Amino acid sequence: MSSTLEDVQSRPDDRGIPLRHAGICELKYPVVVWDREKKTQHTVGTFKLTVDLPRHYKGTHMSRFVTALENHRGECSLETLPELVDELRERLDAERAHARVDFPYFIRKAAPVSGAVSDLAIRCWFVGDAAEKDAEFTLGVEVPVMTTCPCSKTISDRGAHCQRTHVRICIRFRELVWIEELVEFAEASASSPLYTLLKRNDEKHVTEQSYDNPVFVEDLVRNVAVLLRDDERITWFYIEAESQESIHNHNAIAAVGSEDL
Amino acid sequence: MSSTLEDVQSRPDDRGIPLRHAGICELKYPVVVWDREKKTQHTVGTFKLTVDLPRHYKGTHMSRFVTALENHRGECSLETLPELVDELRERLDAERAHARVDFPYFIRKAAPVSGAVSDLAIRCWFVGDAAEKDAEFTLGVEVPVMTTCPCSKTISDRGAHCQRTHVRICIRFRELVWIEELVEFAEASASSPLYTLLKRNDEKHVTEQSYDNPVFVEDLVRNVAVLLRDDERITWFYIEAESQESIHNHNAIAAVGSEDL
Amino acid sequence: MSSTLEDVQSRPDDRGIPLRHAGICELKYPVVVWDREKKTQHTVGTFKLTVDLPRHYKGTHMSRFVTALENHRGECSLETLPELVDELRERLDAERAHARVDFPYFIRKAAPVSGAVSDLAIRCWFVGDAAEKDAEFTLGVEVPVMTTCPCSKTISDRGAHCQRTHVRICIRFRELVWIEELVEFAEASASSPLYTLLKRNDEKHVTEQSYDNPVFVEDLVRNVAVLLRDDERITWFYIEAESQESIHNHNAIAAVGSEDL
Amino acid sequence: MSSTLEDVQSRPDDRGIPLRHAGICELKYPVVVWDREKKTQHTVGTFKLTVDLPRHYKGTHMSRFVTALENHRGECSLETLPELVDELRERLDAERAHARVDFPYFIRKAAPVSGAVSDLAIRCWFVGDAAEKDAEFTLGVEVPVMTTCPCSKTISDRGAHCQRTHVRICIRFRELVWIEELVEFAEASASSPLYTLLKRNDEKHVTEQSYDNPVFVEDLVRNVAVLLRDDERITWFYIEAESQESIHNHNAIAAVGSEDL
Repeated sequence: MSSTLEDVQSRPDDRGIPLRHAGICELKYPVVVWDREKKTQHTVGTFKLTVDLPRHYKGTHMSRFVTALENHRGECSLETLPELVDELRERLDAERAHARVDFPYFIRKAAPVSGAVSDLAIRCWFVGDAAEKDAEFTLGVEVPVMTTCPCSKTISDRGAHCQRTHVRICIRFRELVWIEELVEFAEASASSPLYTLLKRNDEKHVTEQSYDNPVFVEDLVRNVAVLLRDDERITWFYIEAESQESIHNHNAIAAVGSEDL
Repeated sequence: MSSTLEDVQSRPDDRGIPLRHAGICELKYPVVVWDREKKTQHTVGTFKLTVDLPRHYKGTHMSRFVTALENHRGECSLETLPELVDELRERLDAERAHARVDFPYFIRKAAPVSGAVSDLAIRCWFVGDAAEKDAEFTLGVEVPVMTTCPCSKTISDRGAHCQRTHVRICIRFRELVWIEELVEFAEASASSPLYTLLKRNDEKHVTEQSYDNPVFVEDLVRNVAVLLRDDERITWFYIEAESQESIHNHNAIAAVGSEDL
Repeated sequence: MSSTLEDVQSRPDDRGIPLRHAGICELKYPVVVWDREKKTQHTVGTFKLTVDLPRHYKGTHMSRFVTALENHRGECSLETLPELVDELRERLDAERAHARVDFPYFIRKAAPVSGAVSDLAIRCWFVGDAAEKDAEFTLGVEVPVMTTCPCSKTISDRGAHCQRTHVRICIRFRELVWIEELVEFAEASASSPLYTLLKRNDEKHVTEQSYDNPVFVEDLVRNVAVLLRDDERITWFYIEAESQESIHNHNAIAAVGSEDL
Repeated sequence: MSSTLEDVQSRPDDRGIPLRHAGICELKYPVVVWDREKKTQHTVGTFKLTVDLPRHYKGTHMSRFVTALENHRGECSLETLPELVDELRERLDAERAHARVDFPYFIRKAAPVSGAVSDLAIRCWFVGDAAEKDAEFTLGVEVPVMTTCPCSKTISDRGAHCQRTHVRICIRFRELVWIEELVEFAEASASSPLYTLLKRNDEKHVTEQSYDNPVFVEDLVRNVAVLLRDDERITWFYIEAESQESIHNHNAIAAVGSEDL
């Protein structure tokens, strides 16, 4: 029966318009990612998978993206994502293929004084992009940290406003950089790390550490930029920080890319 | 032509199951709301309109909700929303009708020292609910404020963590209470109001005021509860506060309702 | 040092106002849930953990919620969630404790004709609520399905509009009901299930099945209600369906609860 | 007093790192935009305002963005947004300034048969970008439409799956193009427009029109591309369509830009 069903997508198209990014998105799938401590970690990915479509095809075959993902079911890493992208490019007869997966990644953290351990969720993403063989791999992380405002501290007789801030770091590298290392770079560049579990002596420590190390979002991205610039494994980066200002109901942002340096 | 089209929704249903909340939601429509200073304010509403459906109807007529909304196009207030709900109840032959509209509302605020003025967006909602004639009206507001942590201030040698906090207040009343008054109640109950525009001397003022008035989310909702309890216009309330903790990547919450007192 | 830090939360409060739902929310944590096929499944939970706070306490101890969650790290099920809630109630000296965890759950599905297998993500949640020993457990699922409009089919000479619809089902039970069973109830009540992976012969099957079984959201929730009402394991339920109408940019909804029958 | 408060942001910075996009975001402000029919329309904008910051400044002055916005309070259009961007660039001594505002815009539409009128909300955005005098202006719209699947229609004996689809169009132009015109381009390229209010004879019309004009997302963006390519006012465009597939719980996407032609 199915042998007689017409392949409508493969009909010729005479409008002469090639397409970018034809495919699927908002697809949730279970994934296993690499974990520096535990080897692997189970989490949930949200996928966007696309190809650039030559002008003579009417449509792409959306089911083949899912089939390719099924074939790579399980591990999703800097080794397997480029394979998936290469497979998409070949399977769909495309000049270029792209894959992006976003997922929460959990890091085990010890509180600074009590040592009490808990998990902190880090939003991460992998991007694969292939115009030819060997897809380019990009790693992204969004690290929640704490920032105290240098202006507020300087001009006020007591106190200083602080807030939760998210640092987004995207990198490409010639040698593996762990998610955990980017988290450490972001935390070292902020007023203080933040934690899921803090006992009273930890809260005192974090409060004072944050007060003692005020940074603007501008300082924060520059601090991270210096660390990434000096890391020989990293070949490209883009850094953005966004703070949920406690004195405003809007956010403050700043960014810097490796091309700017 | 259309006179021959069957009214499928009016077919009898023999499963014997009455429905709750049959209708439409996520409908954006322009609205004009009352403004204490400027008489009226143009904004954008997101509507949910439903009726409880008797067991003998197969379906409700979704287009009639939009027609009713069109008929009440323009002003949306404690006078017109109950009229809309009553109209829905009658028009759809229902025992009960409900309407909820969420909208951003802008308040003009002066910075505490410089007096520089700017707009602050407050998320608001109206709810109308009618089982019989004369729908009950509920007003809700979500006020962004600043909270400094009393524990952090007490135990630390310097500084105190603070953050943006949202106070949600729902009330029913026998005499008009303005959105602006609920905003004032929330701000008076927090460590400090927050502002869209602050100059340097304002930032100093807000920092010190917040540091001098630390409150937990538990304190914050109790402070608002005392104000609402003592206001004779208000017949029912529910208060909730949620703080975007700057030392954590999760939030702290507390709530209290008039039934609890 | 930490032994001298004052416990500010335990200070007495003289406003005489008891609180509801004091605690934490928006906390992401890895969880392992029961899986009918594979015994267990790793996923990501988003937790809300709260207690009702007696009037004489100034605040609750937010860190204890995380400690309790850490103690129950790993499995999250109808056996362990009530234990967590009971522990919160005792540990925080509260009259009542609540826990809610939302998580994506993956079900392995075979396409209807080709049998090609893929994963479908189902949004689920567990709620635990304890006023005394033995917390009450509620299971919730949101099942994506396909609905074809009976009115559109009846009045049109060809075609019928259809769309993606989400069915939310909450139940309490005296004997275990699997997530997979609720998914089957929802799919059997819709025009057709939907799938992550469909080959051409599957797409033909789904299109025709959906066209042959038109349902309004009102029909859909009534169909599910009949199935749940006749299941002796289930002691309480609430059902809601919301369709992303393809002819509108707003949604259609309907609901029914076991109390209505 | 305030005259003695140090301007911390103006401190020199010796890290030698220039910044991109330093500023504010997620700021809601009331705006008035141009309306082809009614001259003007009141709506709610969400602003992102940033500058590229030279390497020698420690930070930018976040309050000046709000002051600039206040000065341009009221009308937000292709005339005033570039003025705002130019003012930001000068006021903040920056090499480059950017502004983006997103807002819902309401279009009055008549149903295709009954002529019943109602409002349809269109998500729109303006972008201004200035490296030198005279900022470049970009207009974006997201138009909700209906698409019927050509493959499903061809291979099925009856019916065809359809769904709500969003078409995002960004353009730059040498002569004014109205939001309403882009909406018309998107609707003419889809299987059918969608409407807020449809009576029974309208629903029949829309169902049949959509069934008679099946398009993939790939067809949809190509159809729009042909219209924009042939419009001499338009100097640059990017088009993206995303359909909420009714047979899947994920979306299908396709895109095309003027550079590809």
